[in-house]
Amino acid sequence: YQGKVYAVNPMATEILGLKVYPSVNHIPEEVELAAIIVPAATVPQVMQDCAKKGVKGVVICSSGFREAGGEGIKIEREIVEIAKKAGIRILGPNTTGILNTANNFTTSFVPLPRLRKGNVAFIAQTGLFAAAAFWWILSAEPFGLSKVIGLGNKSDVDDSEALEYLAYDEDTKVIAIYMEGVKDGSKFLEAARQAASRKPVIILKSGRTGAGIDASLSHTGSLAVKDEIFEAVCKKTGIIRVKDFEELMDFLKAFALQPLPKGNKVAILSMTGAGCVMAADECENHSLKVAQLSDKTVKYLGSYMPPWIKIKNPIDTEMLFESVGPEDCLKISLRAVLEDENVDSVVGVLPTSPLFAFDIEKAVMEVRGKNPDKPIALHVIGSKDMVDLWTKQLERIGIPVYPSIERCVKALAALCEYRSKRHSTAGP
Amino acid sequence: YQGKVYAVNPMATEILGLKVYPSVNHIPEEVELAAIIVPAATVPQVMQDCAKKGVKGVVICSSGFREAGGEGIKIEREIVEIAKKAGIRILGPNTTGILNTANNFTTSFVPLPRLRKGNVAFIAQTGLFAAAAFWWILSAEPFGLSKVIGLGNKSDVDDSEALEYLAYDEDTKVIAIYMEGVKDGSKFLEAARQAASRKPVIILKSGRTGAGIDASLSHTGSLAVKDEIFEAVCKKTGIIRVKDFEELMDFLKAFALQPLPKGNKVAILSMTGAGCVMAADECENHSLKVAQLSDKTVKYLGSYMPPWIKIKNPIDTEMLFESVGPEDCLKISLRAVLEDENVDSVVGVLPTSPLFAFDIEKAVMEVRGKNPDKPIALHVIGSKDMVDLWTKQLERIGIPVYPSIERCVKALAALCEYRSKRHSTAGP
Repeated sequence: YQGKVYAVNPMATEILGLKVYPSVNHIPEEVELAAIIVPAATVPQVMQDCAKKGVKGVVICSSGFREAGGEGIKIEREIVEIAKKAGIRILGPNTTGILNTANNFTTSFVPLPRLRKGNVAFIAQTGLFAAAAFWWILSAEPFGLSKVIGLGNKSDVDDSEALEYLAYDEDTKVIAIYMEGVKDGSKFLEAARQAASRKPVIILKSGRTGAGIDASLSHTGSLAVKDEIFEAVCKKTGIIRVKDFEELMDFLKAFALQPLPKGNKVAILSMTGAGCVMAADECENHSLKVAQLSDKTVKYLGSYMPPWIKIKNPIDTEMLFESVGPEDCLKISLRAVLEDENVDSVVGVLPTSPLFAFDIEKAVMEVRGKNPDKPIALHVIGSKDMVDLWTKQLERIGIPVYPSIERCVKALAALCEYRSKRHSTAGP
Repeated sequence: YQGKVYAVNPMATEILGLKVYPSVNHIPEEVELAAIIVPAATVPQVMQDCAKKGVKGVVICSSGFREAGGEGIKIEREIVEIAKKAGIRILGPNTTGILNTANNFTTSFVPLPRLRKGNVAFIAQTGLFAAAAFWWILSAEPFGLSKVIGLGNKSDVDDSEALEYLAYDEDTKVIAIYMEGVKDGSKFLEAARQAASRKPVIILKSGRTGAGIDASLSHTGSLAVKDEIFEAVCKKTGIIRVKDFEELMDFLKAFALQPLPKGNKVAILSMTGAGCVMAADECENHSLKVAQLSDKTVKYLGSYMPPWIKIKNPIDTEMLFESVGPEDCLKISLRAVLEDENVDSVVGVLPTSPLFAFDIEKAVMEVRGKNPDKPIALHVIGSKDMVDLWTKQLERIGIPVYPSIERCVKALAALCEYRSKRHSTAGP
């Protein structure tokens, strides 16, 4: 972080080479934001100091407020009161706060790995979940983060405002939310509608069942929302709801890396006949159509295969593989469907083996470079070490790889559904 | 393979050090099984030779029969005719055949990795799918295989007979099936019912939708079965149907490694509050109950935590982690729930970090060794390299690890459902 940082602590004169001021009022220059990490009972005094100094934003990382009950509830009420009078906005308390990869700024006190900038923003209700997600994303996913907002107790700034901000954030292409409950339903509905009309908003909401709501009460004390109502909110606003953390990662990867499809017609390329059948099933289950290939594509693919093979979609690539080998099989089949005007997106099953001596990145880039407009999702089959290697290589060039053909299709379906919903819900 | 192998080929006198006979009738000893890998047109003659020799079983790996149409259909009819007259059973044609890890016997012509013996048997309709599954299982899954049966064109031996055989095979604890269509519905129903009353039978059936059935017709020419009917067959017979290949692997891992639970009461241990909520949701969605912990457990766990913590299931292990550290947190919480008479199975979220200097295998074995009767499913969170390492180490000692807490719960739910169904469908 290149901006100015001032340390405040009444007990020290220097911390990590920074001059330390006894209070915020001793700082000679203007202060934009205060990160408060002192015991809960001391926070009101610090807030008063901030008010006097003219600080307009605070992130309160300390815990021991509403979530602790008793005295904590009173203190939280007190600091909200001080903030309102002074025109201060509060994020938290009880949060790791914010993180901005554009300028490397963070208020988090959790040790973080080296940051990777990216276009996905994350709003999380709880810090530990955000931290776990964060470590996973940075070590395993091909996308990076733009902003992370941990809301904590939501004493002031809430999901709706975070969403509103991210909807207009130029560094953010996709917004992810983990949420257990909604405070102000109609405010959230409007913020969600607005945000979803600008960019994809993907939400993982737990507390869906009686048992989940019980567990959520002891966790964040969230207000329960009937799941049917929340489902209806998602449908109405165009936000995309996922069923679990894996699906959240799957969809983020697709939205972060791929363009939106023009329509719902999918080409399926699979080395195993079983993959063809499973992919076709999944398409129909998710309102996608198995595309009817153009005559040109059928002719083009046919020129590489024995005449008795009937070429249709799903395309069983085994015979092509046998006649031209693994590299050309991939290039020819992928090029054919990417250039077919009847195809809007492509799902493919690639076999891999240490015996295939070709550069998968180069092969895919060669075809993809000339045809960048249709989303692709791939599934790689073979032994685990080769699958891991190709996954890494393909994702490095922006092609999402999934652990099953069904998950490929679901990710494409999410892109497609978002595109058609945005068209139908966007205002004038 | 330690048994005798005879090579038959009219053109050679020695292959790979084996004496070669010009026909099966020149072999001086009795022949139990013939693996036939000659052009389709020559197969009838070879079958005649086998009939004369008194061979009772053949695996026909060659293709070019019914699946090729035209002349192939006639040849297939002819060989079935020969077999019937001579009392020969046929597996195939158009298959990689069988594999038996108990005696290292296989008819497969696909290069195979080093075999790992295990208790899971596989019935697959198609060879390439079986091969891909095989490579994946041997390189990525903690269970091994007992038998693999590739049915091919099913000109004689079919799914029902394979199932019947495996139901009584002592090396097989769990049976997996990949299937696109059923030939003889009532025969399959009876075989499935019988097999499922003896051991878990997990089935992945594609061709569920119109698009899937279309694709399946060009793949294996399978007869379509209305999906609702097939679903009813699964319910009635007690076979477990999975929605995709990943779920098949998830369930196989649980059934292969874990005992069946006595009932549906689950203890949830999670380092993140969000994990608690998501696991509770998933339990309710799958007819599992969030167990009510015994007073003893509450008191035991309470003795390690600050008095203001209210201990209940789902158990948020964060405070325990903070007071006793990662290793004791795991041992204390896992021991508590494994010894609790109100708990039938355990799902847990373990945080991992390179900073945790303890031996996860030893720690879990220490607790698990004394409490082997309840199924456990774990999810590990942290950076990918540590997650992969702990997954490998935990699975080595027979504890299945899943990429999400939801998948842990689903796997436990499958164990629980199988146990209750077996009780209700088993005959006198």
